[in-house]
Parts: sequence; structure tokens; C-alpha cells
Amino acid sequence: MISVNATHDPQLRSWVASARVAGCDFPIQNLPFGRFRPTGSTEPFRIGVAIGDQVLDLKAAGLVDHADMNALMAAAPAARQALRARLSAGLAEGSADQAAWARALVPQAQCEYTVPCEVRDYTDFYTSVHHATTIGKQFRPDNPLLPNYKWVPIGYHGRASSIVVSGTSFKRPHGQTKAADAAVPTFGPCKRLDYELELAYFVGQGNALGEPVGIATAEDHLFGVGLFNDWSARDLQAWEYQPLGPFLSKNFASTVSPWIVTMEALAPFRAPFTRPADDPQPLPYLDSAANRAQGALDITLEVWLQTARMRAAGEEGVRLTRGNTTQAAYWTAAQLIAHHTVNGCNLNPGDLLGSGTLSGPTPGEAGSLLELSQGGKQPVALPNGETRSFLEDGDTLILRGWCERAGAVRIGLGEARGTVVA
Amino acid sequence: MISVNATHDPQLRSWVASARVAGCDFPIQNLPFGRFRPTGSTEPFRIGVAIGDQVLDLKAAGLVDHADMNALMAAAPAARQALRARLSAGLAEGSADQAAWARALVPQAQCEYTVPCEVRDYTDFYTSVHHATTIGKQFRPDNPLLPNYKWVPIGYHGRASSIVVSGTSFKRPHGQTKAADAAVPTFGPCKRLDYELELAYFVGQGNALGEPVGIATAEDHLFGVGLFNDWSARDLQAWEYQPLGPFLSKNFASTVSPWIVTMEALAPFRAPFTRPADDPQPLPYLDSAANRAQGALDITLEVWLQTARMRAAGEEGVRLTRGNTTQAAYWTAAQLIAHHTVNGCNLNPGDLLGSGTLSGPTPGEAGSLLELSQGGKQPVALPNGETRSFLEDGDTLILRGWCERAGAVRIGLGEARGTVVA
Repeated sequence: MISVNATHDPQLRSWVASARVAGCDFPIQNLPFGRFRPTGSTEPFRIGVAIGDQVLDLKAAGLVDHADMNALMAAAPAARQALRARLSAGLAEGSADQAAWARALVPQAQCEYTVPCEVRDYTDFYTSVHHATTIGKQFRPDNPLLPNYKWVPIGYHGRASSIVVSGTSFKRPHGQTKAADAAVPTFGPCKRLDYELELAYFVGQGNALGEPVGIATAEDHLFGVGLFNDWSARDLQAWEYQPLGPFLSKNFASTVSPWIVTMEALAPFRAPFTRPADDPQPLPYLDSAANRAQGALDITLEVWLQTARMRAAGEEGVRLTRGNTTQAAYWTAAQLIAHHTVNGCNLNPGDLLGSGTLSGPTPGEAGSLLELSQGGKQPVALPNGETRSFLEDGDTLILRGWCERAGAVRIGLGEARGTVVA
Repeated sequence: MISVNATHDPQLRSWVASARVAGCDFPIQNLPFGRFRPTGSTEPFRIGVAIGDQVLDLKAAGLVDHADMNALMAAAPAARQALRARLSAGLAEGSADQAAWARALVPQAQCEYTVPCEVRDYTDFYTSVHHATTIGKQFRPDNPLLPNYKWVPIGYHGRASSIVVSGTSFKRPHGQTKAADAAVPTFGPCKRLDYELELAYFVGQGNALGEPVGIATAEDHLFGVGLFNDWSARDLQAWEYQPLGPFLSKNFASTVSPWIVTMEALAPFRAPFTRPADDPQPLPYLDSAANRAQGALDITLEVWLQTARMRAAGEEGVRLTRGNTTQAAYWTAAQLIAHHTVNGCNLNPGDLLGSGTLSGPTPGEAGSLLELSQGGKQPVALPNGETRSFLEDGDTLILRGWCERAGAVRIGLGEARGTVVA
């Protein structure tokens, strides 16, 4: 586990004024990594660190000599911890670097982003037992939570090519669906388009094929965390998913936030990982004292919806959900790494592990419309009189996340935003 | 569809003597692409074309100025057809290039290979209705072939990182399994290790996110075909696969042949795509006159097993299966491309689409041990007195494939070979 150190000191203040604003996602205690360039340019994307409402260009600041985020992620944790310490010192009030680094700042309002690293392989997990149970009831009323769920961190491979960065619109997918009472399927636009509130865990150091990563060192292979929306076409999913899992219902687009918040930044926001006493305890390869003591992440997550009508009226949107990862996740990130590699499977730097939909224990903490609207049977009423069972064309969905604790400075994950178009 | 032209002329002979040997996999009518280097060297892999028992180094021959197979695959079909014509002319008897190109030949016996291109995303399909039915009976006795099978080309995403080239050994995977009569799962080495006989379809030109590829132009996005072994841990699979599909049971290793046989080389070996009259016909987005007329590939496939005892005795091994793709595949490669992209999913050059296990209609044409041994209940008797229900440590499994037709020169796909170690 990563310890809390001087880079987390609540007294630490940056010479970047916007980083000192209360409630800011990117204070000096955060320092997340992303890839940016001036909006509208065709330059290659560069590695940057968010600070307040600015981006520090790492190359311009003399901190890296390349633009290869995956190479940076591949380094051993000590290397990125050293980089974090260097960034923290250089951005702190009184730093001798201020004059030089100030010239390496670009306002975020003048930047565009891409997916924060090259994602070679993307795996999606299913870590919320609440989500698995609620969804399971809809797909298999008599058999909601399958017998393997509490033993196996259920996961499946997803499509890396269609992962897009926050702010990217996508077309409503077409595909085959079959009504329960229909004899044959029909082809057309998805009618039950949904979002899924997830975290993206980004792999740092890889492992060689045939060399499992034990639970004790699993976090050495985690670089950090982002927000992730695994858009889902529920009607396509219901018809296609047996026996080999979701395919076209998921691979038309997935939206990731531009910033990777590192495991180092998250150090003050760790929590015990516990199981209900009646539940089976994890098998030894998924269990360790450190994982039990502080394997979980304490992140508050929100889902906001801005319909086209709200946007036209200048309204920011409405919050659909607020929850917390400690309530939602039945498996920790370390357990996902240990499980994924226990058969020898090799992970590479930049690989993305989706947490699965992080629904909490109460209906208001559900991480998808399929849950909130009870499979479309109870449309969600919005304050402006609109209702939603599923997403409509023009809807913008925004995921937000942050960590807040007594004795620590609040840090944010930014947002993952996407709009569905016809 | 790609037409038969002068590059397929049975009268065409190469000045490379080994390419004229009857039964050779790589006559001048084939010209498959791969990535090679001298055995044991640490040089970067280079692009080569197999001819007889030699490899033509494309850069040394002045035909490309790079070693980026994916860039070559990304080109429009006309570009690779022009390259094929150039290769065919230069390797033909009487060519003015003979003296120069002879210096660009490297004996295959002195080469090692890597996966023939960088596979960014790998999708596995399930195109044999015979395999789906036989396996379905074992997993779901009362419900073997699911209602979607004859409508949807069932597919799921696989792991790209663990695809290895022919000749690579891999460790028997460990994982969770649960016996039917056990209360809780146990952890240990896989006891039901299997192979799957598949074709790899390699994507050439990509498509942009949100822009489906219609069935009429689907083959313009196909570069070629290889052999593919989707090793499967059946006991892990049975316990983990619901509800989201196979994961650790598949992603420990998949073996691909070193050579990609192009769609151009396969032009003389096309076959009609037909459905039993009682079966539903494909939905319009999966149907075209050209696909019906010659959407299928006529490839003979074999599976060979060489046990450690056979190897010690100097024996080549025993053939377990021989079948043909026209009997096995319920969906054509063009249909897989059209289906995969119909929701807007983007394919990239070098993406690999597995056909799924190509089992034919008779038990002797089964493409996996799970089928041949009836789920382990009827061990396969080998000529030397050994038996196999599933693979044992030291077993080498070899896939072979070739095309043969009256009026055409036989071409081969080479082999995909892998050995399981403890």
C-alpha cells in the first residue's frame, strides 16, 4: 500500500491560485495525469498534469522528454512517486521552479484531451453485488445472483478501440432486438440506451505472460483511477448476451475521463475491505491482511443528466445518483489484478480495468437507468417535467467523482461526459 | 469479391525451387505475409513473404521501406493487390528481379517469427452451429442451441495481449473450479485443458467509429486468414462463464500461425454460402447476392496431437480431426465484419476475428477435445496406447490448413503449434 506523505499535507498550497479554490478538483494534493493539446490544433497530444484550472505541460517544464504516457505508466511505482514529489515541490508556494513552470502552464479552458493513455486491452468487471442482484432479477427473475458471484470476481473482455474521451458524442447504435412475444428479431435503433457508472482502474507496470501477480504486490501494478461510462444498449444486450456475454450492446462507445488520479493521490482515501459475515471469505489468492485493512477506495460518485431541453434552457442538469465506492464494490482493485493474472494472463501498461457498474445498496445509489427505472417500468421523473426510462437523443450524461475526508484536502476525478445523437 | 487473375495461374512457376515442390504450402500462387527475423537474434522483426521454404525480406527486396505490418494492412485492397502482382512477377521464372531478390531470401529454417501483426483488438466468434450445439448440450442439456444463434453471429471480445505465435509453449493455467457436487470452489491447476480449431480473420482497412461497414463492402476490410488455437480451460470456463462469458478460461494463451494468407490468394477457393432451407435466412444487413454466391472459404483443416511420449519416440504425432470450413461455418467472414460494425464499432488494421471452433457436422470433424471425448466421458484412444480426455503436460497440438481444388494450385496456411507445460 502507498503511504500518506508530505505530498498530501493539507497545509501545502500551490502558487497556482486556482488550485487553492475550495472544492477544486485539482489541488496540489491531487496531480492527475492526462494527454492534452491546444483546442482545435493538430499537434500530437502531450502529457500534462492538472493543477487548478491549468495544465502543466510536463515536457515544457523539463520533467519528461517524450509524450508517451504508457512509458510513464510502465515505470516502477518508485519512479512515479519521485515524479509526484518533484511536481509537488515545484508547484508549491515558494518553489524556485515557479517562474519557469509558469511558462509551461496552459489554461484547461483552452485545451482538448484524448483518452489518457493508449488502452491496449480493456477488461470490464462486475464488482457491485447490488448491481449484479438488481440486474440479475430483470434478466433471470428466478436466479438473480449466480452461485459464482461471491467467489469469482466476474469479468469479461471489452472493446478498446471504441473508448473515447469525455466530451465525445456518439451515435445511437443500431442492432438486432427481439421482443419477448415476437417470433423473429427486428433490426433498428436501440430503444433502451443506458449508461453505467464505473471507475476505470489503469494498469501501470505490466507482468509477463505466465507470471501471475500475487495479491500482496497487486497494487504495484496499478497506476491510478478515472471515471468510466460503459454505455449499454439493453435491448441489444438481452437478445445477444447468451451464451458468451455482451458484445454489440457495449462496444459502440465507452467514455473515460481525461485525467488519471494516481494511487499515490488516493492514499489518504483508503478504506477497509469487508464482507458481510455470512458471505464466503475470498480464496487465499484474493486475500491479504493489507487488502482487508485498506484495500478499498473511498470515492463519492455522482451521475448527472442534462437533457436537450435543459441545455436549451441553460440548465446544468439534474443529479440522478450519488453513491460511494466503499458501499458498492464487492472486490477491490488489488483483487481484480490478482484474479486477472492468476492464470498467467499478461497485463500491459495502460490496460483499463472497468469496475463494473458501481450501484450502492439503496435504489437511489443505482448506477444505471435500467436499475433506476426498474427496467423501464418506472420512468424517472425529472424536475422540468420530463421523464426518462432510458436515454433519448440529445441527452448528455455526466459522471463526477471526488474524495473527501477529515484531515485531508478534497481531490476530484473531474468528469466523464458524453452526448447521444441520433 | 476478389477475382481470380494471372497471379493464380497454375502454369506460373517460381525461380525459387522449393516453391515448385508438390504439396508445398507456399507456392508462388500463395505469397502470405508474416514478421520474421534470424533465429535467436534481437533485431526488430521484418516483414516477409513465404515462398517455398524461404522468406523474401520485403525491405531487402526494395518493396517496402518500413517494418510496420499494420500500415501495410491498412492500405486499400488495390495497394496490396498491386504488391501481390509485383511479388508474383518478381518471383516468377524469368524475372529480371531474380538476381537481386535472391539476395533478399532467408531460409525459413533459420527464422523465428512473431504474431504476424500488432493485434489491437481481438474478437472471437462462434460460427460453427455444430460446435455450438454439441457444446451447448454439455453446458445446458435441455437448451443446447439458444434461440438467438441462427439470427445473431454470436461473438465476444477476447484478450489480445496473450496471443502468441506458433511454436510458443505456455504454462497450464491455474484457477477456480467447482465440482458439481461440491459446496465451495477450489483453486488449482486446470484439469480440463482443451484446444479450439479456429481460423483467424485479419482486418485490413479500418472503419471510423460510428460508420458501419455494409455487407457489400465488408471484404474490402479483410486482409487475410491464419490458423488460430483458442486454448480453453473447460473447468474454469464452466464455473466462471455466467453471466458475462468466458474470461480466465481463455485469456492465458491463444496461438496464431506466423503467416497471413491474403484474401487475394484465397480467390480460387471461394464457395457458396448456403443455409438449410428450414433455417431462417440472414437479416438484410447480413445478406447479399455476392455473399450467397461465394461468401464461404473452402479450407481443409486438420488437428494433430504429438504427446511427449510420441516426441521422445521420434513420432510426428497423430491426426485427431480433419474437416472443411464450408461444412463448419454458419456465418461468413463478410457477415462477421458487417455484424461487428453495424452498431458503429470501429475496427482497426490488424484486428483479429476468430471464427470460433470450426467443428463439422460429424463427430470426427469436431474441433475440440471437449467434443471428441464427449466432455471427457469417452477418452480418445491414440495409436500408441495412450488416451486423452483433455490435454496433458508435454502435449503439442498442431493445427494445419490448406486449400485444394481442381484447376488451382494447392496453397497452405502453414501451421499453428503450441505445447502445454506444467
